[in-house]
Amino acid sequence: MPWEAAPLGAPNEAFMRRALALAREAAAAGETPVGAVVVRGSAIVGEGKNRREAGKNALLHAEMEAIAAACKALGGWRLWECDLYVTLEPCPMCAGAIINARIRRVFFGAPDPKAGCCGAVTDLFSLPFNHQPQAYGGMLEAESAALLRAFFSALRRQKTSERLS
Amino acid sequence: MPWEAAPLGAPNEAFMRRALALAREAAAAGETPVGAVVVRGSAIVGEGKNRREAGKNALLHAEMEAIAAACKALGGWRLWECDLYVTLEPCPMCAGAIINARIRRVFFGAPDPKAGCCGAVTDLFSLPFNHQPQAYGGMLEAESAALLRAFFSALRRQKTSERLS
Repeated sequence: MPWEAAPLGAPNEAFMRRALALAREAAAAGETPVGAVVVRGSAIVGEGKNRREAGKNALLHAEMEAIAAACKALGGWRLWECDLYVTLEPCPMCAGAIINARIRRVFFGAPDPKAGCCGAVTDLFSLPFNHQPQAYGGMLEAESAALLRAFFSALRRQKTSERLS
Repeated sequence: MPWEAAPLGAPNEAFMRRALALAREAAAAGETPVGAVVVRGSAIVGEGKNRREAGKNALLHAEMEAIAAACKALGGWRLWECDLYVTLEPCPMCAGAIINARIRRVFFGAPDPKAGCCGAVTDLFSLPFNHQPQAYGGMLEAESAALLRAFFSALRRQKTSERLS
């Protein structure tokens, strides 16, 4: 795997637990449950949850919201000293945004075999762009994967019952 | 090259000329000159120009603004029947956003050897994501490249004169 195993324990795990809480909020709003936080030192400086359906906007992934919020909080577009915690391996757009924002380290929960760009489909962080973040995967992976599984299984049940009604 | 040569002539060229006009507006505002439009049928449904410095936000690339505007104009996040015209080859974030928004075709001006993701650094559109846009490069490339060259050369002159003063 191109990513290293994420170090567990405080404070990292607490940040991922906050990202998981945001993912649960997304699920409750009918969105694919993904949550993210940007951290500087010991403080969360940006939070985001997936809002693609409600916002009717392809760009509204959790990481994008968290990065935009962090840029706003810190007053600049370079998040040099920041780390990002996200419940699902970032897609190409979000991995690219992480590179563009110069984020130092990415901790993610579940790998995404369909769109993951920290190694699952491709590893954007290993390419010769002007910044290479370090990725750590599998942090509280079971909880994140369980959330996603429950969401998609409820979605399938709903679609089946719509077809039968 | 993984991209095909862009077909010139109306109406495609007119859309790229509008993107170039937006790039010039960006340059006038002190931003790296990149402009983009999203087109559906024969109408522009979203426009964007690079605003990263003014917006102090790593996400504010021309393509992102144009895609967000098109999602808003069309009332949904899937831009199935839309094409995107941009003066510079998209970076990983923007190429990923193009995939996520299900944009059909991308016409770009100058290739970007440092960050281009339609073939220059990597070709994200050839990977097994759930959507593969078609890319056409080199459309009004000379004009786009000249704009970028003039901008960076002015920036270097300014930095030199700041060092000497």
